[in-house]
Amino acid sequence: MSHHYTVIKGEDFTEMLSKKVVFILCIGNTKTAEIPGITVAGANPDLIKFTPPADAELLYYGYCKSIPFPPATPDGKPTPALITYTALKLVNCPLFIVNSGLIVKPKVPYIDIGLSVGENILKRSAMKIENIREAFKRAKIIGNEISKYADVIMIAESIPAGTTTAGAVLKALGKKFAVSSSMPENPINIKLKVIDKAVKRVKSRDVFHIISEVGDPVMVGVMGIAIGSKKPVVLAGGTQMAAIAHLINEIKTKIETEAKRDDEINDVNVSIATTKYVVEDRSADMISISPDVNIIAVDPGLEKTSKPGLKAYAKGFVKEGVGAGGATLLAYANGITQKQFLKELEESYVRIIEKQ
Amino acid sequence: MSHHYTVIKGEDFTEMLSKKVVFILCIGNTKTAEIPGITVAGANPDLIKFTPPADAELLYYGYCKSIPFPPATPDGKPTPALITYTALKLVNCPLFIVNSGLIVKPKVPYIDIGLSVGENILKRSAMKIENIREAFKRAKIIGNEISKYADVIMIAESIPAGTTTAGAVLKALGKKFAVSSSMPENPINIKLKVIDKAVKRVKSRDVFHIISEVGDPVMVGVMGIAIGSKKPVVLAGGTQMAAIAHLINEIKTKIETEAKRDDEINDVNVSIATTKYVVEDRSADMISISPDVNIIAVDPGLEKTSKPGLKAYAKGFVKEGVGAGGATLLAYANGITQKQFLKELEESYVRIIEKQ
Repeated sequence: MSHHYTVIKGEDFTEMLSKKVVFILCIGNTKTAEIPGITVAGANPDLIKFTPPADAELLYYGYCKSIPFPPATPDGKPTPALITYTALKLVNCPLFIVNSGLIVKPKVPYIDIGLSVGENILKRSAMKIENIREAFKRAKIIGNEISKYADVIMIAESIPAGTTTAGAVLKALGKKFAVSSSMPENPINIKLKVIDKAVKRVKSRDVFHIISEVGDPVMVGVMGIAIGSKKPVVLAGGTQMAAIAHLINEIKTKIETEAKRDDEINDVNVSIATTKYVVEDRSADMISISPDVNIIAVDPGLEKTSKPGLKAYAKGFVKEGVGAGGATLLAYANGITQKQFLKELEESYVRIIEKQ
Repeated sequence: MSHHYTVIKGEDFTEMLSKKVVFILCIGNTKTAEIPGITVAGANPDLIKFTPPADAELLYYGYCKSIPFPPATPDGKPTPALITYTALKLVNCPLFIVNSGLIVKPKVPYIDIGLSVGENILKRSAMKIENIREAFKRAKIIGNEISKYADVIMIAESIPAGTTTAGAVLKALGKKFAVSSSMPENPINIKLKVIDKAVKRVKSRDVFHIISEVGDPVMVGVMGIAIGSKKPVVLAGGTQMAAIAHLINEIKTKIETEAKRDDEINDVNVSIATTKYVVEDRSADMISISPDVNIIAVDPGLEKTSKPGLKAYAKGFVKEGVGAGGATLLAYANGITQKQFLKELEESYVRIIEKQ
């Protein structure tokens, strides 16, 4: 097994990933992404809403259908879905897409759990609490059904401006809330302004209340699937998954106090896998914002590539998303070396990006 | 293993069902169900459109959410989802719901493959051929992903008036087309009139053309999932599944002649499991209308029950649906005796029907 990864916290769970893993991508939108300058997850503001469905299409088809080219930043850095696509193809892992509150539906099969797009948390509450409860219940069913034959569920996300809602949730929970960004110059000031204003609406530490005020719908999908699973769960992502791991901990410890709750809450084993680019991000602080769960930082070795769009990742652009870090670890756990992986990734890049 | 089943054609595939089975219910609607007297899959004409989503809800929750009571015929015979619910609970089999062209979405998680309700085939073409092609592609992805960890995929259906569209497809393929019904007095004359008129629009034997003229969206979902699967598939249903088995055979043998087709067509192993009530239906002819695939007729022993709604099945009411026959066989294959199964089914009946 390749050792191009580092255990940052807890134990090394990589070996578990050589068993039967199911990869689930939760995609959604928050209108928080409409705040100018808050995200670069789209070549221009009009395209941001297409990024999650286009990421899903790329994973199944190797090209996008909702837009004529893969998602990219305004300066042309391609979506991390390229990395995830390459990894999942190599290990032939089952993939399911969950509509966790999309504006535009993807042109692939997807699981619907009844979520709508999240509102702009700068202006108003993100979602209705009844919608969260119902979607959480449905997401738990998915986690439960899939965990019957899977040994591990890996859950990834794609939601532009998701680091801002993650920061707001962390602050509302009273945690450190430095969060990463898809830009090398993290727009901290804009994010802080949004987070501060949004969190003023939060009146309690109840998880559903916090999400309904300052969260986003992808959190509901990821959290529900994780809590519904009877097998270990790996959250594949950066600071967003750190926030969700805190939410899961809150639910696991607080659920008894909720009245009339007939729902089953599994004591799910949660770990996080992300790229080393997130962990090395000085503007965020992945390690200290995360709860006490196993965390692995994966090194895709992108500083070694000649492909400019990929090399940029090693310089702090994009960094993570669509479960790129977790998917790379999955490839490593299944005997792919960093060198082989990089070669395959470059071939994906040539076919999907350069030949456009 | 209980032997309350009969191999009607081919080989006994029951042993296969003690392995990892995933149960998929494809639900949808055809406006053909609006023709007066053609179906009793609903307590009154306004409720027919709720039957498929309510069946799906019953399977996950043991009660319905879209309507305040389980689907039933106008004279109170309950949905066969009761049987399926009981069987799936006993074997703890993973269940997925596929929206195969619904009017009303179920209040459960469901997989969307982009299908809309089918038109009334008496009046016009059922669906656009482009929609069929795209949904077929998406359904194949689902079959492929699920078959990676499953050993067998069992596919069921719920679509009111589905036996009429099945009859039309069989006639269009040049096959015998006597089809069963959820009524003891099969409304053959109405069905024949609809089928004769609809089939006049059919201009070729191309599968997608035939479905687009006289089929229904559930056929597209079932067929796509089956063709996408790399593992054996059991179609759980009566004459509708016989029609779909013919369509799958056509696709498997004819696909090479279609131009520019990049799609992978697996040489999937297809069997059929249905109730003995369908096979014994003299107005239909399940055996002779089916292609050369393994067929098992399952005996749930409902003549032995004191519950009137269930006993009616043994007298030719309802007979089959929601994969009731296949699900019962699944229970038998996993060591449940007919006696135990009947006891559990009666308990479901008390809780779900009598205590309403």
